[in-house]
Parts: sequence; structure tokens; C-alpha cells
Amino acid sequence: MNHPSTIRPSDHAAYAPSKMGKSTIFESSRLLVGLNAFEPGQEHALHAHAGQDKVYQVLEGEGLFLLEGRQLPMKAGDLLVAPEGIAHGVRNSGNRRLLVLAILAPAPHK
Amino acid sequence: MNHPSTIRPSDHAAYAPSKMGKSTIFESSRLLVGLNAFEPGQEHALHAHAGQDKVYQVLEGEGLFLLEGRQLPMKAGDLLVAPEGIAHGVRNSGNRRLLVLAILAPAPHK
Repeated sequence: MNHPSTIRPSDHAAYAPSKMGKSTIFESSRLLVGLNAFEPGQEHALHAHAGQDKVYQVLEGEGLFLLEGRQLPMKAGDLLVAPEGIAHGVRNSGNRRLLVLAILAPAPHK
Repeated sequence: MNHPSTIRPSDHAAYAPSKMGKSTIFESSRLLVGLNAFEPGQEHALHAHAGQDKVYQVLEGEGLFLLEGRQLPMKAGDLLVAPEGIAHGVRNSGNRRLLVLAILAPAPHK
């Protein structure tokens, strides 16, 4: 799961027909680097993390990101930060796949 | 410095003629999201962070990344993780600007 070498994120994408697919690129106690993969129409419902900050970066496709009650259209290259406690979510409102880099600090407890 | 909205990282790039330019996109105690901006030929010398993991992602250009004594060519979209204690560095070996997203968890002490 940990890669001490160059990582091409899309190689690790895990799309699933039933719901958003998740994969992990790197994980320590301090940091989780993962991917959220959305087929068209899939979403990650509004949620918040106590004591954890999250960074999203759109890698492929586009979607509607929810943050603090707002809807933000995001496309490849765009970044969004959801500081701890701030509700956030993602909806693939487009007609192609949406791949998002999702970084959490610190990592969730196991 | 903190942006509760869509961020286009390149809008925050701070190139400097004398050395690698740094800018901060988001900072908390848990997380630092920043940019390292390299003119052709500029570098960030080999260094390590005790107790901090770092994620690099190339946003624009290409360069040579150093990790654990290896030299890794990286281009836009590529990701690299330098776990805590692992020496890492960057050299803009190309002939155009290199922009790198650099994420540290936890953030450095002030």
C-alpha cells in the first residue's frame, strides 16, 4: 500500500458500480492519501471529520463539491480544503468518471 | 491564506529569481498545503522531516525528485510520498517552470 516511488494516481483508482470506490495510496498515523472514484451520478454524502483536515484535488472529470452549505463546481486540477468539523461532500454531476485525490490529516483511527 | 472555496493552485505560485519560491495555500496544526515553485535549474536540497510525512504532486512542468538516494523523474500528475525521516529533494532539470504541490502532516511548528 505504501509506495516509496513515483505514483501515477489513476493506476490506483477503484471504481465500483454500486457506490463511490475508495483506495489508499499511502497511510501513516499522520496522513492518509487516498482516491475517491465516482461513476456518473455517484456521490459521497455530506459528512464532517472531527479533528481532521481534508484536502480534495480533482484528478479527472468534474463534479459538484459541497462545503459549508455551498455547491462548488470543480474540475481537474482544482483543490478544495475542508477544515476539521466543516461538512463536505461530493457529487459526480457529469457524464463521465470523476477521480478525486483525498488527503486526510491525521489519518482515521483503525 | 485559508480558502474555504475552490482553489486553482497555479494562482498561488510564487516564483523567485534567486531560489525556489514557497507559498502557503492552507495551514493548520495538522496540515500544511503549499506550493514549491522552481525556475529552470533551481532546486530544493536533500532534507528530511522528523515526525512529518510529505506528499509531493507535480502540477506543472517536470523535474528530478530525490528520495532515499534515488533520482526519480516526475511529470505533471505524478505523486511522491516522503515518509517521516526519509531524505528527499527536488531539482528542476527541465527548461521550463516546475510547480509542485507540497503537503506536510503535521504542519511545521511555528
